[in-house]
Amino acid sequence: MNIAIIGGGAAGMTAASRVKALRPDWNVMVFERTGFVSHAPCGIPFYVSGFVEYLEELCTYDVNYFRSERGIDVHTNAKVFEVGDGYLIAEENGKERRYEWDKLLFATGSKARGLNAKYEELEGILSVNDNIMNAERVKREALKSENIVIIGSGYIGVEMAEAITRLGKKVTVIEMAERPLPEYDAEIAAILKAEMEKFVNLRLGERVVAFEGKDRVEKVLTNKSEYKCDMAIVAVGIRPNTEIAKGFVELGKSGAIKTNSRMETSRENVYAAGDCAESINIVTGKPDWIPLATPANKMGYVAGVNMAGYELHYPGSLKSQITSFYELEIGKAGLSEHEAIREGYEVISSFITTKSNARYFIDGLIHLKVVADRSGKLLGIQAAGKGVAMRIYAASALLYRGSNVRDLFFTDFPYYPPVSRVWDPLVVAARNLFRKIGIP
Amino acid sequence: MNIAIIGGGAAGMTAASRVKALRPDWNVMVFERTGFVSHAPCGIPFYVSGFVEYLEELCTYDVNYFRSERGIDVHTNAKVFEVGDGYLIAEENGKERRYEWDKLLFATGSKARGLNAKYEELEGILSVNDNIMNAERVKREALKSENIVIIGSGYIGVEMAEAITRLGKKVTVIEMAERPLPEYDAEIAAILKAEMEKFVNLRLGERVVAFEGKDRVEKVLTNKSEYKCDMAIVAVGIRPNTEIAKGFVELGKSGAIKTNSRMETSRENVYAAGDCAESINIVTGKPDWIPLATPANKMGYVAGVNMAGYELHYPGSLKSQITSFYELEIGKAGLSEHEAIREGYEVISSFITTKSNARYFIDGLIHLKVVADRSGKLLGIQAAGKGVAMRIYAASALLYRGSNVRDLFFTDFPYYPPVSRVWDPLVVAARNLFRKIGIP
Repeated sequence: MNIAIIGGGAAGMTAASRVKALRPDWNVMVFERTGFVSHAPCGIPFYVSGFVEYLEELCTYDVNYFRSERGIDVHTNAKVFEVGDGYLIAEENGKERRYEWDKLLFATGSKARGLNAKYEELEGILSVNDNIMNAERVKREALKSENIVIIGSGYIGVEMAEAITRLGKKVTVIEMAERPLPEYDAEIAAILKAEMEKFVNLRLGERVVAFEGKDRVEKVLTNKSEYKCDMAIVAVGIRPNTEIAKGFVELGKSGAIKTNSRMETSRENVYAAGDCAESINIVTGKPDWIPLATPANKMGYVAGVNMAGYELHYPGSLKSQITSFYELEIGKAGLSEHEAIREGYEVISSFITTKSNARYFIDGLIHLKVVADRSGKLLGIQAAGKGVAMRIYAASALLYRGSNVRDLFFTDFPYYPPVSRVWDPLVVAARNLFRKIGIP
Repeated sequence: MNIAIIGGGAAGMTAASRVKALRPDWNVMVFERTGFVSHAPCGIPFYVSGFVEYLEELCTYDVNYFRSERGIDVHTNAKVFEVGDGYLIAEENGKERRYEWDKLLFATGSKARGLNAKYEELEGILSVNDNIMNAERVKREALKSENIVIIGSGYIGVEMAEAITRLGKKVTVIEMAERPLPEYDAEIAAILKAEMEKFVNLRLGERVVAFEGKDRVEKVLTNKSEYKCDMAIVAVGIRPNTEIAKGFVELGKSGAIKTNSRMETSRENVYAAGDCAESINIVTGKPDWIPLATPANKMGYVAGVNMAGYELHYPGSLKSQITSFYELEIGKAGLSEHEAIREGYEVISSFITTKSNARYFIDGLIHLKVVADRSGKLLGIQAAGKGVAMRIYAASALLYRGSNVRDLFFTDFPYYPPVSRVWDPLVVAARNLFRKIGIP
């Protein structure tokens, strides 16, 4: 059997490894357009800030490992530009080659979104994307710049803002929405806003309309003002990379490739996994596009098992995420209140600010928001402050299991004064919601 | 209505507050034998080490707060010595007084276990118990001693060992079992053992048989050796404090007061909550005695709601716990492997040692053990190292919801390089168990 996998990122390499583990005698080919496989772009901000010295450290394993230890036929710098029934054509070292496949996986990842403003001709304007070579360029340019504008304050924008201020540069962050991390609710975003304003010039509710400069960018113009700079980083989000898949397999509403729980596409023997694929949002039960590293790996795992002829179902994801800005941790699992309302839920919510550990330990404030529907079913949990990761881990587990406010209250969270409280913030928030759903 | 509550610890004060919140016009009396209410003995080691300066800081609220803000009739230094149908008799300021009740709650907590060896006549031998005044004595004695023997290495023994070495004293810990924290499995306990041996003289598999000294303890004798000391701390566990309840209400197999999920005892209008009460072990589904702070508070909450004439059910607890010894965090939720075997389960387990965060962050090893039954149902999770609290929080949520190995694998835990991994240790351990339950 010939297995072809397009894309050597998290999903692709996990699927390849899985097929090879279950079917050692099958031929598993991976076509990766860059020189790196198993790259983990989540680490890019830590490379830019200098915390991680070498780009290679961001790759879990190198190409040789996959070739020699796992027996995977990895093709790097191989750009697939045509896919048809049972074959694909790739360009490698300037030459076109045709490969046959019995089963195919799209693991083509995502692409950085652009802006409406024109900027391709100017130097010094860069996106952060999942090609980790790009991180080297971003860092090189940042080191020789003084004033840097970051456009967008999703988690990549926020993490880059920290990374670049750590390099000693002046940073302006321009965000179209009224708050940073717009997927979060206003209460949580306000905490981040206050923290960001200590380090960067944060411009909210502004839309970039143009760039000015001779050869190199010199100014970013918004609908409200203008900002001098010698570098601009575009971090306004990503979109599924479906160029080759489009027309060959069906896409979903989100624009990502439609899949079922076995990661099968609309075409027999063709699978999709990772940032290019749709999956189920566990909270809503509806198809969603959730381009995050952990779901990508698990989708790849499930795709690999099914491609190998076994059966395993991917239940979907919660969009669980954690990030930080300097000392402030921020995390979210499931839906924010505004996302839940947009999905048609009638919601109840509780927002609290409290110590995350015993009061005789300093420095442990946590801001926590729990969102549920009127029956008490949990829809999402957001947090900012200290002790965020442990609460978002617990929230992910409860949301995954379709839990309600009563479960959140009664889950037996351990108490240890340095890290938690006898009435955990999660439990306090649940108790606040008791009144709203008629629990005494 | 007259409500009488015996014991002003976590369970008692929570129940009292709950009744008063739901029934402001009812008379709620609390009888507490010490001068403190709402005391949180979990903080005692932090007081002994000097981290917490004043004992009062260990009490969430003081007596006046409960009296004036919550309208609870708190009697401190009030020892209840007789309970009958509809009445109790307490000794207060040397006088006996009789009080009538319509509903009664036993929240009498636990007592430190003693040793078979005789030691009452010798000075310098102390227990750590939930009377926080006792913490002051322990600290005073420790400060004037040089060689201190701690008997027992449950979590109180372990935490006291750190606290007292932090005071610069020489500490010997004597444990009857072959490992510290005997409720944990050997793999996890071995990590703790190695860490403890850096700071204390840890004597495992030794049983204390006698104490020697004139007026003050001078030597602890075990079945194998003897240890010079000028102070000994007995921390060999606790037992339910059921002296007054015994004979009036039924006790369970564990020796604690038998309750149903409304915290009702065998006698109408009589309730029990906290360390003196039995509840359900969520993993086994059987009655168990789980004397920990968080369950005590929740039992108190449920008892209060039901005493107020409403209905709320306590689902039980997981014995979730976290502790630490210097830099090593240790935690557990549900059953260890040997506990599961003792309960009659046929078990599978996975023990792994791995980074708890991305490999380009230093200093993040975690040792993790997952125990399940042969169907894949999760029975318990233990961890030692870094990032323990977040994994035990997640484990608690999954165990509370009766989850299996597949749920552990597919829960969408968030990835952020400084705190977690794209394949979280929990997920890796789950994947290891896939083979054993036939998941490809």
